[in-house]
Amino acid sequence: MVNHSRTTKDSRKYGATMDTAVQTLGEPKIDSPLDSAYFVEDSERVLHSASAEEICREVNAGREPISFVKAGPRRKIYFDPSKLKCAIVTCGGLCPGLNNVIRSVVLTLFHTYGVRNVVGIMYGLQGFIPRHGHAVMELNPSTVAQIHELGGTILSTSRGPQDPSEIVDALERMNIGLLFVLGGDGSFRAGLKIADEVANRGAKIGVVGIPKTIDNDINFLSRSFGFNTAVSMATRAIGSAHVEALGSPNGVGLVKLMGRQSGFIAAWASLAQRDANLVLIPESDFDIDGPHGLLAWLEKRLERRKHAVIVVAEGAGQKYCSEEGTDPSGNVKLGDIGWYLKDRIDDHFKEKGIEMNIKYIDPSYMIRSVPANADDAVFCGFLGQKAVHAGIAGKTSVVIGTWNDEYVLIPIRLVVQGRKQVDLKDRLWTSVLEATGQPSLKPEKEEEGRQVIN
Amino acid sequence: MVNHSRTTKDSRKYGATMDTAVQTLGEPKIDSPLDSAYFVEDSERVLHSASAEEICREVNAGREPISFVKAGPRRKIYFDPSKLKCAIVTCGGLCPGLNNVIRSVVLTLFHTYGVRNVVGIMYGLQGFIPRHGHAVMELNPSTVAQIHELGGTILSTSRGPQDPSEIVDALERMNIGLLFVLGGDGSFRAGLKIADEVANRGAKIGVVGIPKTIDNDINFLSRSFGFNTAVSMATRAIGSAHVEALGSPNGVGLVKLMGRQSGFIAAWASLAQRDANLVLIPESDFDIDGPHGLLAWLEKRLERRKHAVIVVAEGAGQKYCSEEGTDPSGNVKLGDIGWYLKDRIDDHFKEKGIEMNIKYIDPSYMIRSVPANADDAVFCGFLGQKAVHAGIAGKTSVVIGTWNDEYVLIPIRLVVQGRKQVDLKDRLWTSVLEATGQPSLKPEKEEEGRQVIN
Amino acid sequence: MVNHSRTTKDSRKYGATMDTAVQTLGEPKIDSPLDSAYFVEDSERVLHSASAEEICREVNAGREPISFVKAGPRRKIYFDPSKLKCAIVTCGGLCPGLNNVIRSVVLTLFHTYGVRNVVGIMYGLQGFIPRHGHAVMELNPSTVAQIHELGGTILSTSRGPQDPSEIVDALERMNIGLLFVLGGDGSFRAGLKIADEVANRGAKIGVVGIPKTIDNDINFLSRSFGFNTAVSMATRAIGSAHVEALGSPNGVGLVKLMGRQSGFIAAWASLAQRDANLVLIPESDFDIDGPHGLLAWLEKRLERRKHAVIVVAEGAGQKYCSEEGTDPSGNVKLGDIGWYLKDRIDDHFKEKGIEMNIKYIDPSYMIRSVPANADDAVFCGFLGQKAVHAGIAGKTSVVIGTWNDEYVLIPIRLVVQGRKQVDLKDRLWTSVLEATGQPSLKPEKEEEGRQVIN
Amino acid sequence: MVNHSRTTKDSRKYGATMDTAVQTLGEPKIDSPLDSAYFVEDSERVLHSASAEEICREVNAGREPISFVKAGPRRKIYFDPSKLKCAIVTCGGLCPGLNNVIRSVVLTLFHTYGVRNVVGIMYGLQGFIPRHGHAVMELNPSTVAQIHELGGTILSTSRGPQDPSEIVDALERMNIGLLFVLGGDGSFRAGLKIADEVANRGAKIGVVGIPKTIDNDINFLSRSFGFNTAVSMATRAIGSAHVEALGSPNGVGLVKLMGRQSGFIAAWASLAQRDANLVLIPESDFDIDGPHGLLAWLEKRLERRKHAVIVVAEGAGQKYCSEEGTDPSGNVKLGDIGWYLKDRIDDHFKEKGIEMNIKYIDPSYMIRSVPANADDAVFCGFLGQKAVHAGIAGKTSVVIGTWNDEYVLIPIRLVVQGRKQVDLKDRLWTSVLEATGQPSLKPEKEEEGRQVIN
Repeated sequence: MVNHSRTTKDSRKYGATMDTAVQTLGEPKIDSPLDSAYFVEDSERVLHSASAEEICREVNAGREPISFVKAGPRRKIYFDPSKLKCAIVTCGGLCPGLNNVIRSVVLTLFHTYGVRNVVGIMYGLQGFIPRHGHAVMELNPSTVAQIHELGGTILSTSRGPQDPSEIVDALERMNIGLLFVLGGDGSFRAGLKIADEVANRGAKIGVVGIPKTIDNDINFLSRSFGFNTAVSMATRAIGSAHVEALGSPNGVGLVKLMGRQSGFIAAWASLAQRDANLVLIPESDFDIDGPHGLLAWLEKRLERRKHAVIVVAEGAGQKYCSEEGTDPSGNVKLGDIGWYLKDRIDDHFKEKGIEMNIKYIDPSYMIRSVPANADDAVFCGFLGQKAVHAGIAGKTSVVIGTWNDEYVLIPIRLVVQGRKQVDLKDRLWTSVLEATGQPSLKPEKEEEGRQVIN
Repeated sequence: MVNHSRTTKDSRKYGATMDTAVQTLGEPKIDSPLDSAYFVEDSERVLHSASAEEICREVNAGREPISFVKAGPRRKIYFDPSKLKCAIVTCGGLCPGLNNVIRSVVLTLFHTYGVRNVVGIMYGLQGFIPRHGHAVMELNPSTVAQIHELGGTILSTSRGPQDPSEIVDALERMNIGLLFVLGGDGSFRAGLKIADEVANRGAKIGVVGIPKTIDNDINFLSRSFGFNTAVSMATRAIGSAHVEALGSPNGVGLVKLMGRQSGFIAAWASLAQRDANLVLIPESDFDIDGPHGLLAWLEKRLERRKHAVIVVAEGAGQKYCSEEGTDPSGNVKLGDIGWYLKDRIDDHFKEKGIEMNIKYIDPSYMIRSVPANADDAVFCGFLGQKAVHAGIAGKTSVVIGTWNDEYVLIPIRLVVQGRKQVDLKDRLWTSVLEATGQPSLKPEKEEEGRQVIN
Repeated sequence: MVNHSRTTKDSRKYGATMDTAVQTLGEPKIDSPLDSAYFVEDSERVLHSASAEEICREVNAGREPISFVKAGPRRKIYFDPSKLKCAIVTCGGLCPGLNNVIRSVVLTLFHTYGVRNVVGIMYGLQGFIPRHGHAVMELNPSTVAQIHELGGTILSTSRGPQDPSEIVDALERMNIGLLFVLGGDGSFRAGLKIADEVANRGAKIGVVGIPKTIDNDINFLSRSFGFNTAVSMATRAIGSAHVEALGSPNGVGLVKLMGRQSGFIAAWASLAQRDANLVLIPESDFDIDGPHGLLAWLEKRLERRKHAVIVVAEGAGQKYCSEEGTDPSGNVKLGDIGWYLKDRIDDHFKEKGIEMNIKYIDPSYMIRSVPANADDAVFCGFLGQKAVHAGIAGKTSVVIGTWNDEYVLIPIRLVVQGRKQVDLKDRLWTSVLEATGQPSLKPEKEEEGRQVIN
Repeated sequence: MVNHSRTTKDSRKYGATMDTAVQTLGEPKIDSPLDSAYFVEDSERVLHSASAEEICREVNAGREPISFVKAGPRRKIYFDPSKLKCAIVTCGGLCPGLNNVIRSVVLTLFHTYGVRNVVGIMYGLQGFIPRHGHAVMELNPSTVAQIHELGGTILSTSRGPQDPSEIVDALERMNIGLLFVLGGDGSFRAGLKIADEVANRGAKIGVVGIPKTIDNDINFLSRSFGFNTAVSMATRAIGSAHVEALGSPNGVGLVKLMGRQSGFIAAWASLAQRDANLVLIPESDFDIDGPHGLLAWLEKRLERRKHAVIVVAEGAGQKYCSEEGTDPSGNVKLGDIGWYLKDRIDDHFKEKGIEMNIKYIDPSYMIRSVPANADDAVFCGFLGQKAVHAGIAGKTSVVIGTWNDEYVLIPIRLVVQGRKQVDLKDRLWTSVLEATGQPSLKPEKEEEGRQVIN
């Protein structure tokens, strides 16, 4: 799929100073067991921008254009597969495809490189900490044979950071040489600290991340696994909302979708199932009251069309319902915009004495707990392979990403510098506006790149 | 499917006085246009009980065993198809299969009998009332060609009764001879009043009902359409809850399913997707607190197995959360047992200082807004055919039901006398207890027909 | 679901002589471990016919109406659970739900009765024969935990009979007290021979069958598991054929479905996905040539409507394409009516110089290899429970069936006496004729209970 | 999704001479009705290669790197929307997403630009030719409202070329200004001739193509719509084959998938559902006989693992089964490699006296006749929008493609110069080899970029 969710201009923020070099544990000296393989050289790099003008301008000005190191098997590897022990850990919320990635990592380690010693750390980073008392799980081709058919993760997860020093103690105690972290933003920050602690101790433990976020908002990653599956599931919720809206006088279907800080799922699902008449995302402010607010819009819409479908990302409209505090992962707690909107709409039409029938759908965990679809399954398979290729070659503090249709290696430190958001001027959001025909819900017309006729 | 949800003993309540005779508008004198067809005589009747002992005892005692009139095409019909105008109305909440039934009624009227004049009343009973200003929709084979692919109802619905007199005014004004009502309990009570008003006026308008209730709790009906599809969808929610429960330390998946007064969906879905450890239904009282209560059970379960899945029907545990008032259909308002339980569980473990991660899933409208599955599609097709056969033969105040694997005609007045509930002593519920291994959540062991070993 | 596929009159064939008594290994003397359970008495019987006239006539004439023994847990059991060893074997072709039944049998044995020793015989009856060298698989709650998510059977199957004497040798060698056979017609004939051999040896080994046939044509069984799922899958093939037929000038979609001797899948799937214009089944003869033949019909249909969908059961039209010999299970080999029809249609229109685009779809194994849907999953769960209840109480040479919405015990010898077929006069087939509007494809109109107007 | 199916090096074939300039009908002078939109300039170009080394080398050598014109709305448009009449035609085989693209084109024309006159040409290019007598269909937001829920194309299709002169006659007669062609290779060759004929006549009719090929083998297109959906469906066939293979002694599941000249579907589906042990594609030659041939491999595999799954693309192994002649679209007729392989395998094991049970699955039209999945739905929506933006701005003889995550305009003449094939050295195929562990089936090891250990 064309990655409408990449933010094409984010490199400009970092400008010429953006360093995409990848760290290594040391010089890889062992011949790869892969024969006549499709080896990749460290010098192969993928341009960050594919804009002909931009790149020509940069090169002609004598500047090296920003690019990422290409992922793939290296001719020389760092670890001796026969002696290497690896660990895999899954952190944070569930996401379709976790088991596919675990399976791919394990199968590539075993079948491609001949590594025989792989363990799964149970319950996320908690699993490293002795006082939590979680066991580890041995992983091999037989234990992972069917796991891609199951949702969730066979390793279970937990939220929240743990002491990096205790984690490295555990890694050393278990004699782990290579740690694969499947997680998001928070986990990668933890991964960075682990890698720092490893470096401080002069240990030789590689840390390779495989980015996991159902919201698809990890920096510098054109796509994260599970997102495609999540969108498929979200479209069903919107379809249901549409059926319900059509099913009663002045029917309103209201769907809350994931997206704490970004509206990618809401935007994509709205484009896939073109039934939404209003899409609300964290990136685009809106008013509920007033002549340009949501309630006024809805009243007019019902008058004209007798039904409406509204999609709201969970992080939208927090100015109306925000709560205090953070969850164990350190994420700011969100107020429940779904119920808030439902109540406001209910009250408004009751006050006005207009019959209105709102049906609220929050598919929540039903979206993220399903097995990966075919597309994500292929993607996860590649991510796992590339992660192993990177790790065994001695790359560390690195995640596997995709950019311009290539798999690339991105330093973790770049990934945790910020989050992607929907660019209100770019084709994804303008297409949503076009598809829904929705107006700006702000007093004066805002600069949202409106593309509708009048 | 074997109909585990029929209540085998309900005829005893009515005893020898239960009158299953079907009303007619008058003597059918017109030859059916069906040639060499599989005609059914009015004398063909289907036993209510298939118990050999019971029936032999009754017959030997000289009593006629209770039986229902068999549905099917009659040799003589009452209405002249070339002059007949029919109307279809859908009432109450959405239910998978509504469009299939509409389509079957229309196609049978057109193709089997040659009726050319069929209208759909929009927005339920509201559609009869001029001041609501809803148009009617013309129905013919071309307008209904693809509607079985869509969820919901192309006629839309509304809740609540309307003045029977106004409705019969409308029927007479539109010159309707035969009205098909797709609805539940409430709609049938309305249907009864319409039929009474028709009789009072000496009009010749037939009223045939096709029972619709996603909860499957209509009296004397072994199964209602859409239930099978609803159970399929509900199983996915339970599957998701299980994946989530396994996905975190002391994970609890809590699923709220439909079932205002009966736990059929909850019970069946729990048997289909055998991941639930506790099923709570309106028919079976339970305590939350105390040594035998839900919280104590959950604490022990988590200690032992580290995860738990709880399924709760919306009408369960109302002693804890009931609200006041009724909705427009006259249904008692229910408190939200789902959120109530979630909060209670959250608080309990927080107080105890035990990490517990609860994920709450309310699939709600996603269950009822999908198109009918293959099984319901076949069932709906037959219901529509049988309804037309009955109506055109002059039967009135009657609904189409199924009993002992036959389609039967049941007087509306019997259907509205009460509601089916899960029999706590019967195989459905004992199988749920067996499948979940759940204990009684009451101070002293109650007489719930426990089937587990100790 | 109402069981349109039961043949209501089959008991008449056997008349007063039909003996439905169930064999036992001996008197059950042990108290069931189930406390306060929903026990069933041997005297509880389910009427074969639910026709009020028929039953009253029989009883009044002093004849006992035919009835089946009700299935369910007995107060006294024959085997001591702590000493009992059970075996499960799956025979013949794959069918959705096999793993569900295996799982239910194992869980009921373990959790309800406390049996601890259960083995699975691998590769069908071959698994009993030492020279085939197949291992057995230990079965317990942990090995069967997730198997209901998988299609096929974890025990694998094979076709064809094996020497009953060798089988009983194996049963005695392994010390099996109770054998559960999941299979069809052929397997039950084998099961009967095993039971006879057991009786000859005076051994105490129970044989309980759970009927498996995707074609749904086992005698005296209103429904067999997997059929519902198979129909769901078959409807998709018909839907595809319809899309293809609409997609080209004079498009014809031709779908071959399972059904060696009966057209139940073809008939049901055609009713679920009402896109078929012609359904051909083994029970209803048809001509290809001649003025009333298929080709003439198709030509007219294309002239009028420009597209057509034809569904053919694999056993239909064998007079045109039959082969010689039998397969290892002893089934007569069928000629491939699908390809035969495709070629004949292709040739016909080529000769006539008329553009016609036929698309042939044979979903074959994609129909039977999927996991059970929710409805079959519940059904399989009950079948497994009832089979255990029967076996442990000492019933033998018996299968679990359903009749008049109850689970019943049927002697194997009745089940293997013949096969169900679609009754051309009954509602299933007349509804198909009504839904398709198809004519008789025979020179003179045949007595097929036509229900269309003219 | 990362586009593993693009052939990264294909530009080298054309070298510096590859001309990616886009033709226009004339200078666009009308202001676009889109206000403050995300306009794209003609000067914005997307690099063909994203390789940093390659691009820097080219630029430093003073050569302009190959790039494509970016798609998107232009500030000035060529056609006056209020006077423009557009036509849409769908050609060749069905493909998931056709209706989505039609819908998107129609909605963008209506809602974004205010065009009010759009017709659909029925039955492909035949629809232009008077003697075929096909009507046209009026298209507007209401006629296309629900069509994305249906598989196939509401416009139907046909195969084969028609006289360009007759087509342009029809376009002029109907006063069409802009023609959208949804088709593959053959249709684009036709489109090119239409555009030439238009140019010869000095007419002002734009021709914009939207590439459709389920095989995903159109040149210079990293992905074609419907492919993603097709892969999802194909994975189910492979899953079924796996279940069947496991289900009998020495079970072999053989699946034939689409792919006349390229193995993209086979390769992707094998990666998504990792059950295949051997994947055969047109690009990779193989032997059936001999010590390194397929039969020898299969024998060893069955000895070791007792089951095997083989996936074969329809164009593979044609040296064994090729036929003569071409179909109406001019495609070479293929021999049926599926049945050929099945027979050869059957015979081989019969001869050897080894029990082997092969199940052959040809999902064929069930793969291509389904509605688009969510991912393809979004993609199709964008393709339709971009096609309208291009056409209304006066671009002609152009198709909409995607490259390096951007939508681009590619001259039709480039697209029809050749076909993409799986690169046996690239990551897609090496991953398949890795996933299956399959050896080369040729006498001596061939240079297939093997990535397995030894």
